[in-house]
Amino acid sequence: MLNLSVLTDPGFCPHSLNKYPSIMACGNGFMGIRATHEEDYTQQTRGMYLAGLYHRAGHNESSELVNLPDITGIDVELDGENFTLLSGEILSWHRELAFANGELRRSVVWRSSQGRRYRLESRRFVSLDQLPLAAMQLSITPLDASSQVVLKTGIDATQTNSGRQHLDEISVRVFDPHYLQGVYETQDRAADVVISACCRLSMDSDSCFTAKNRSITVHHALNVTQGETVTLEKLVWLTHRRDRALSMETFARNALTELQACAAHGYAALLARSACVWDKVWHDSRVAVSSTEERDQMALDYAVWHLTAMTPAHDERSSIAAKGLTGEGYKGHIFWDTEIFLLPFHLFTRPQTARSLLRYRWLNLPGAREKARRNGWPGALFPWESAASGQEETPEFAAINIRTGVRQKVASALAEHHIVADIAWAVVAYWQATHDDAFMRNEGLTLLMETALFWMGRATKVNGRLEIHNVIGPDEYTEHVNNNAYTNYLAWHNVASARQFMSMFGREDAHFTENANRFLTHLWLPAANAEGVLPQDDSFMAKPTIDLSRYKEKAGKQTILLDYSRAEVNEMQILKQADVVMLNYLLPERFTPQQCVANLAYYEPRTIHDSSLSKAIHGIVFARCGDTERAYAFWRDGIAIDLGNDPHSSDEGIHAAATGAIWSGVIQGFAGVQIVAGELHLAPKLPAHWRKLTFPLRWRNASMRFTFENEVITIETSMPVTLTLWGKILSAAGRQNFAYKDFMTSVSGTATTERGHDA
Amino acid sequence: MLNLSVLTDPGFCPHSLNKYPSIMACGNGFMGIRATHEEDYTQQTRGMYLAGLYHRAGHNESSELVNLPDITGIDVELDGENFTLLSGEILSWHRELAFANGELRRSVVWRSSQGRRYRLESRRFVSLDQLPLAAMQLSITPLDASSQVVLKTGIDATQTNSGRQHLDEISVRVFDPHYLQGVYETQDRAADVVISACCRLSMDSDSCFTAKNRSITVHHALNVTQGETVTLEKLVWLTHRRDRALSMETFARNALTELQACAAHGYAALLARSACVWDKVWHDSRVAVSSTEERDQMALDYAVWHLTAMTPAHDERSSIAAKGLTGEGYKGHIFWDTEIFLLPFHLFTRPQTARSLLRYRWLNLPGAREKARRNGWPGALFPWESAASGQEETPEFAAINIRTGVRQKVASALAEHHIVADIAWAVVAYWQATHDDAFMRNEGLTLLMETALFWMGRATKVNGRLEIHNVIGPDEYTEHVNNNAYTNYLAWHNVASARQFMSMFGREDAHFTENANRFLTHLWLPAANAEGVLPQDDSFMAKPTIDLSRYKEKAGKQTILLDYSRAEVNEMQILKQADVVMLNYLLPERFTPQQCVANLAYYEPRTIHDSSLSKAIHGIVFARCGDTERAYAFWRDGIAIDLGNDPHSSDEGIHAAATGAIWSGVIQGFAGVQIVAGELHLAPKLPAHWRKLTFPLRWRNASMRFTFENEVITIETSMPVTLTLWGKILSAAGRQNFAYKDFMTSVSGTATTERGHDA
Repeated sequence: MLNLSVLTDPGFCPHSLNKYPSIMACGNGFMGIRATHEEDYTQQTRGMYLAGLYHRAGHNESSELVNLPDITGIDVELDGENFTLLSGEILSWHRELAFANGELRRSVVWRSSQGRRYRLESRRFVSLDQLPLAAMQLSITPLDASSQVVLKTGIDATQTNSGRQHLDEISVRVFDPHYLQGVYETQDRAADVVISACCRLSMDSDSCFTAKNRSITVHHALNVTQGETVTLEKLVWLTHRRDRALSMETFARNALTELQACAAHGYAALLARSACVWDKVWHDSRVAVSSTEERDQMALDYAVWHLTAMTPAHDERSSIAAKGLTGEGYKGHIFWDTEIFLLPFHLFTRPQTARSLLRYRWLNLPGAREKARRNGWPGALFPWESAASGQEETPEFAAINIRTGVRQKVASALAEHHIVADIAWAVVAYWQATHDDAFMRNEGLTLLMETALFWMGRATKVNGRLEIHNVIGPDEYTEHVNNNAYTNYLAWHNVASARQFMSMFGREDAHFTENANRFLTHLWLPAANAEGVLPQDDSFMAKPTIDLSRYKEKAGKQTILLDYSRAEVNEMQILKQADVVMLNYLLPERFTPQQCVANLAYYEPRTIHDSSLSKAIHGIVFARCGDTERAYAFWRDGIAIDLGNDPHSSDEGIHAAATGAIWSGVIQGFAGVQIVAGELHLAPKLPAHWRKLTFPLRWRNASMRFTFENEVITIETSMPVTLTLWGKILSAAGRQNFAYKDFMTSVSGTATTERGHDA
Repeated sequence: MLNLSVLTDPGFCPHSLNKYPSIMACGNGFMGIRATHEEDYTQQTRGMYLAGLYHRAGHNESSELVNLPDITGIDVELDGENFTLLSGEILSWHRELAFANGELRRSVVWRSSQGRRYRLESRRFVSLDQLPLAAMQLSITPLDASSQVVLKTGIDATQTNSGRQHLDEISVRVFDPHYLQGVYETQDRAADVVISACCRLSMDSDSCFTAKNRSITVHHALNVTQGETVTLEKLVWLTHRRDRALSMETFARNALTELQACAAHGYAALLARSACVWDKVWHDSRVAVSSTEERDQMALDYAVWHLTAMTPAHDERSSIAAKGLTGEGYKGHIFWDTEIFLLPFHLFTRPQTARSLLRYRWLNLPGAREKARRNGWPGALFPWESAASGQEETPEFAAINIRTGVRQKVASALAEHHIVADIAWAVVAYWQATHDDAFMRNEGLTLLMETALFWMGRATKVNGRLEIHNVIGPDEYTEHVNNNAYTNYLAWHNVASARQFMSMFGREDAHFTENANRFLTHLWLPAANAEGVLPQDDSFMAKPTIDLSRYKEKAGKQTILLDYSRAEVNEMQILKQADVVMLNYLLPERFTPQQCVANLAYYEPRTIHDSSLSKAIHGIVFARCGDTERAYAFWRDGIAIDLGNDPHSSDEGIHAAATGAIWSGVIQGFAGVQIVAGELHLAPKLPAHWRKLTFPLRWRNASMRFTFENEVITIETSMPVTLTLWGKILSAAGRQNFAYKDFMTSVSGTATTERGHDA
């Protein structure tokens, strides 16, 4: 049995009312539900989202992930007093998210201001077995006397995204004796949402339904004797559609039928089924670590939990939002985060999902081609931010400058073009890890060629060499530069990969090849200086530096912008996040270890790490360079982005990319997993705090499990594999142990072989 | 000095968090602000409304009074703890609305859950001197130790009408050092709203501005020593427009300039100015009573307060919403309530406002003509519900029947046509009370003729007589009947008045006169039976009766509909509200006192009084019939509609018409003021609880003041007037006393005359 972590909310605190709802959110890739309390608090933001359901709420607004009508709220009145933890006294408290089965639980003993004690226990999960299903229970036990209990719950469509309303209410219905249903339509009439709920009480009660002001509510009033427990069970079936193949009546009725089938099983059985599916998730992707620091294992379980909950694996028309399905930050848009920070996890644990994420880009090629064309370039220019349609969703203007009244154009959509090459990089990595020729032949080659065409058109000829001007690299504190090293190298990789795979798959096109050859020969690739440092761009090295230590202390808060304007920051050697270091991470074979070390040494002191994407990448490159303790420190800082003590760190949702980086930091950092020249390389070196590390890894058709302990690697594999360990070829089959010393010395040793338990 | 009432909120109670915000709302006819607390509560609904600012938020929605971005909320953090009365302990509490100057005040001593005591005092008013101005202050005094105080306030546009958003945010700005401004546009782009705020603290503080998620906020953080008081003063200037004559920049800048001018004066001076205008209101319209019941005077001051605060006297394009400007009930629409329940107060105290309310109807004649034409009738059919445009705003369908999924057509807009005659009745009453010939010549005659034309086309010839079929009278429990007595008599009055005034003003039209004569001759006016009872309609008297006592006990809650369907109720002698009694009230000269008594006796037991309009009218007719004690009981019930103990009575706003009826009940009931045959009649009879009654009354060019005490009437008048007291002509000039006995006996006495104090 896996001994999975349990994430706890240490105590009720008005200041962290939006942090825990994000980090403890339940989800299944189809929907996400913030872990808000049943009772309302003014500062608590409820949220339920459907992957891919975006809408633009009005002029001056962007498409955003729609915050759906709430189903989690329950008004509880105990002997005439509204239950709220702001009044009375909390006598005992336990709140946890159990990663093993995905259940969110709270148990509270509360003394009302009238002095009576009650136990309130609630539990909730989102089914990984039936994606449209969410279920919850609330149990109340009066401890001191028989009590009058009133419960009100239903479907509350007063919910908005910070006041922006996306849905029109089409109808609200009740179906005797337990069912409620609300039917909604996005205001642009493009999508329908049907929410069906079944509310059952474990005891008889006076009950009635009301529908008013966008809420449909069932009211239960009953007397509960001292020590007796009444339980409200609420099952919710959530569906949406963009097509109108069925009539609305049929679509809504079908939803009700599905819910009725669930209701026949009840909460416990439905939870058990969902837990079985979670069990498989954990089997296929859990990273187990023996660390002196308890939080390390917690963070790894937390990462796999959210990497599963945030990913719409069921729907290749959707991808992963910057905050997953846990909040409204970045309006639920999809960035390069998906390909660079999130895809590796899927690639190495469930490659079908990685394929689906790449299919999302392939399906959205029309929008990318359109964006390129509108800007006068060939090929495909993928949007910096995208949602359901593949159109550019980056707001045209930034938030208003409240001092000047001016809205600046958002530069990312105009110049942060590296996303094109990032997608190509992910296509190549996917094929390398899977040898999925069918994908490469259909979607992969098209993606590689269209993106390559973009770069060939995007480059400018200057004195006989090709340069890429006016871009923004990953480091967004340096804007509109020429020959950003990250961009140029990735673009080169993009074009080279297109040429290589077109040739490999017999799709050579003389004109394309000729152009590609010219591009690859002439594209300027910024060269390392004598120390091995790559210039971030043409102008960077000449800019002045300042002491960044006080800004680095508050990394993530962008405090530099309180002291300097963006224009001023742009004219100094100040990095928001890894840029050349990121390049070293993505294309390891292009750079020597010495160059990587030199770049870390040069750039890290100039990097504030104001982006949550920065420290994790530094950690991985430090690990690869052998500085495991520095890598561990960065990795721990990365964990703290969401799991640290800042009560407001995650108010608008978890940091999805940082969650991917928790996994990557271990697998690609401490275990040293890399794809070099298309082959799998390992170079494990555990932090001093760690005694043992175990994780599953998919590589092509093999399902492997690696264990690192006592300078020995144990490899368990479903079929024979060949990989490279510290530069030496290793072949493994079944279950085998390999001693580090046999690979780290220049003398090659012999691996001990034993039979795998399943052999 | 007037000793005006103070309305108090007896104590903080989570259940009445929306009642007191309605009944203690501040307003000036231009804007209304609900009396919500500065701190948020989940069940507290904030509201700020501009008269005439309506918008439709989406499909399936009606136009509604827009709930504007909030300016009243202040987040208060005291030594790290959010101030909320749900936690800690309330050591002292005082909250009141002072009618004299319109100031809403709260003073609380609060012990935080950390055990520290603080005094928090807040005050607020909406200026009657400068209509776009609202002002507030919040003072905090730490009582036990120096304290860290954080205050956050600004303009919060996350506000919605139950989740329906009406405004797009155009820009948010700050202007050093104290000014914030938000510019909004209705989503249909038809109207702009500019909210400007000036926030000043009485002490130095760290302050900063943030703009995010539709909110612009100023944050103040400071240390306040024990016993010291820090005061935050916030002045708000609220403007809107439908025309775009000025650029948005100029319009917004002008608002800021106005606010800056106010800020130069400060809260106290601005309050004093507003209080001066209130002073005049009280002088011109206060009703003073010496009663054994303290609440009687309170109710009368409450009524005049709200009758002033709800009435857009400044803008004849707006009229009075069913909940005034205190809440969102009935979506802020305008009903017959205005002409029948609210206009009398204005008519007899500030006839210019009555004229403005009638001008609203006149300006909206195009919509009324269009509605008549669409339905195949001539003339003007005024909408049952109207908003800014004069179009019919009654929702086409009622709320969905949640059991069947069916939405029934709303019948009121289809058949509740008496509103046409109600408006004509008000035109006649206005002229009678003012002899404003200019109005009658321009607007009045047009209104009378267009409405008369409607009725002449609306009637159906049956066996030689004209009948009016398929209508709903004021009693909405009886739908789609023929020859509703109220409707037929009022229609007759309408046509007769049109004929009369056209003749009087030399506008006779032979064709019209001929048609009017035919109508007046042939229209069936249901005749009283031998007992004097008028049949409510053709079918009513044949319907069965049931015992209504248990429904009458819960009058206003429509509990009958829990036991019977609307269709079943329609087939019984069950009244929602006064119908024939209402007719007796409006056209007193048409009925004998015996008939009025008989109708009360017959209909009252059949009336549940589920409408808030019902009891007050019964009260007036009982008073006129001499049953003063029964009248008083009904009047007291009418007071309780908003001022009673039901914590939810006024959640969605006060009952505007019932507020008008508090005034009418006294003036038209106990003082017996009536217009009979165009002349002023009085018939005072005070309830046993009352010793003295004084009120001002405008009648044509005379400003009078009546006092009733010890069987003596004192009349003070600015010019000689003639009126009828208990059927006897009385002439008064200056200040004169008249003994009841001289008028109640058959022998006519001589009035004592003395000089008025202003003579």
